[in-house]
Amino acid sequence: MINLDKAAHLAPIRPGGVIGILGGGQLGRMLSMAAARLGLKTCVYNDENHAPAFQVTPLQLAASYTDRAMLQGFAQICDVITFEFENIPAESIEYLAGLKPVRPGLEALTKTQDRFTEKNFVKELGLATAPFFDVTSAEDARKAFAQLGGPAILKTRRLGYDGKGQAKVASADAAAKAFETFKGAPCILEGFVDFSFEASVVAARGQNGAFAAYDPPENEHENHILRRSTVPGRMSKAQSEEAKAMARKIAEALDYVGVLAVELFVRKDGALLVNEIAPRVHNSGHWTIEACACSQFEQHIRAIAGWPLGDPNRHADAVMENIIGAEVDAWETRAQSGALHLYGKRQPRPGRKMGHVTRLKSKT
Amino acid sequence: MINLDKAAHLAPIRPGGVIGILGGGQLGRMLSMAAARLGLKTCVYNDENHAPAFQVTPLQLAASYTDRAMLQGFAQICDVITFEFENIPAESIEYLAGLKPVRPGLEALTKTQDRFTEKNFVKELGLATAPFFDVTSAEDARKAFAQLGGPAILKTRRLGYDGKGQAKVASADAAAKAFETFKGAPCILEGFVDFSFEASVVAARGQNGAFAAYDPPENEHENHILRRSTVPGRMSKAQSEEAKAMARKIAEALDYVGVLAVELFVRKDGALLVNEIAPRVHNSGHWTIEACACSQFEQHIRAIAGWPLGDPNRHADAVMENIIGAEVDAWETRAQSGALHLYGKRQPRPGRKMGHVTRLKSKT
Repeated sequence: MINLDKAAHLAPIRPGGVIGILGGGQLGRMLSMAAARLGLKTCVYNDENHAPAFQVTPLQLAASYTDRAMLQGFAQICDVITFEFENIPAESIEYLAGLKPVRPGLEALTKTQDRFTEKNFVKELGLATAPFFDVTSAEDARKAFAQLGGPAILKTRRLGYDGKGQAKVASADAAAKAFETFKGAPCILEGFVDFSFEASVVAARGQNGAFAAYDPPENEHENHILRRSTVPGRMSKAQSEEAKAMARKIAEALDYVGVLAVELFVRKDGALLVNEIAPRVHNSGHWTIEACACSQFEQHIRAIAGWPLGDPNRHADAVMENIIGAEVDAWETRAQSGALHLYGKRQPRPGRKMGHVTRLKSKT
Repeated sequence: MINLDKAAHLAPIRPGGVIGILGGGQLGRMLSMAAARLGLKTCVYNDENHAPAFQVTPLQLAASYTDRAMLQGFAQICDVITFEFENIPAESIEYLAGLKPVRPGLEALTKTQDRFTEKNFVKELGLATAPFFDVTSAEDARKAFAQLGGPAILKTRRLGYDGKGQAKVASADAAAKAFETFKGAPCILEGFVDFSFEASVVAARGQNGAFAAYDPPENEHENHILRRSTVPGRMSKAQSEEAKAMARKIAEALDYVGVLAVELFVRKDGALLVNEIAPRVHNSGHWTIEACACSQFEQHIRAIAGWPLGDPNRHADAVMENIIGAEVDAWETRAQSGALHLYGKRQPRPGRKMGHVTRLKSKT
């Protein structure tokens, strides 16, 4: 049997070709700008009329992600299609994949849209995760808590981000109650990892199997939202290499094409646990815009366009800090503190990522 | 008497504001992308339907640069207006300046649109230029050649770029004949400078008078078109400082706001001669995108938007090479040789700048 997806190797998309991007947020915006630098056009598809990425390309479609007629028109315009976030309906990706190459493919999306599927996939690769149990009833939640025997986190299997769809629970009763607040949505209960710090590895795999990983930053979160990525962080050289090898294993198992991010817990004993896989460019990779010859955004475009991957080496140390909610009001001060990026969002709502600043230092 | 232009200080343009750019070529394109990074929108005005900069913003107007109704609409959309090339009709700039702030202003444009006016302006500042004479008749051309007494270059006073409107002449007769091929357009005859190398200094002046200059690259031309900018080049530290001081003198005399470039001849005896002033971002400053925290494009946007200037310091050595005409066919090879920029032009005509590549090296 021929695996069609694997066989469908794309000739490199020539300058002037059109990259389709599902999702018009800041990731789509920065992808679009990276594509433009390479002489490629982008068409942005977004389910709201206003989108940060609409400001950087004249080719734009505002429609529901399930509107088949619009998806068809989108596919007609584009030479290759990608997405900026993993909550695009899988059925839409499947439909588009029948019309034009979608990179990364359906498998990467379906394996990572559901936390339970994702964690099982990671386990099967022999990589470590936090202990977890499937929870489809309040009773399941109680039992799982008893098995984990300590503080735990109930997470909806699908559609969670930035701490949404998560609840920390300290008793079996609390776990059962949390399940009910999620209105019966399928969940997992995850054992609490007493980690030393969090980190991530952002890496790319080309169509020809070439692999390129950026140095893994250390990540700090506040209120479940990334606050700061620092590279180098506390990871040892050996841990960095291990993290890159983990990302490679995951990318290869998914026959992945494009950039992906693997979020990690670094335990006090030095072990690396996979927390989450993001089948896309990632907030913890924004520092690569200034600190690397080829940013994560350009790298993703190169990979999905069938171009040679760029050099992921870091020419400087970097600290990237998000600008969240009303912090954006201090944009003038921020403009003096480093390389400022603002995403063109109209309203600074609490918890909304409005921009980021990257500060470079000489490489240590 | 109040100088209105000097008094009209702009409050900083807030994120979400609109920068108007006259001219939709690669400079407008890279200005637009730099503005987007800062959360500013751009509206591009171009006199042809297709333009590189139209690919990176949805706000675009295609109309003649003298169409008053369109210029008025453009001014209405924009918070501040700039231009990517100096051959915009001065009357249009004057008209726009009555509606919205134009940065840099009319004075910078009129002083630099005409080679004779420009060279006199430079001389009056006490800066050196090649010897030159005004030529408005064939007889003038002969006389001027006799005075210069050696090989010389006849240049039309207006609308020249990339060697267009220039002729090297080796006799008084040739000078007179060249004048006639330019159909009686006012010219200057310029003495040939036996320079050691060419260089340029790209610098910015803010609304508040703040000044920031990039390190001056050494520039190599082929067929009158910039081939390569190298930084550091052969300029000594003292010459670099002198070049920056010259740019500052020029910027201050023009009460300039924005980025300007001063092209220089470096004579064998070490003297720096002003060749040309470009009241805009410049091809010899493209390397700043990768080698500096704040590129010339971002710097120009910051200056004209009334933002604090960014840091012009160079964190790496750099070589920028233009991709000219059919050289763009080798885009795949170029994509592996450094940071590739392609401008989205449809046809690779001879002499047309299609893109550039910047290679970084550790700072020496």
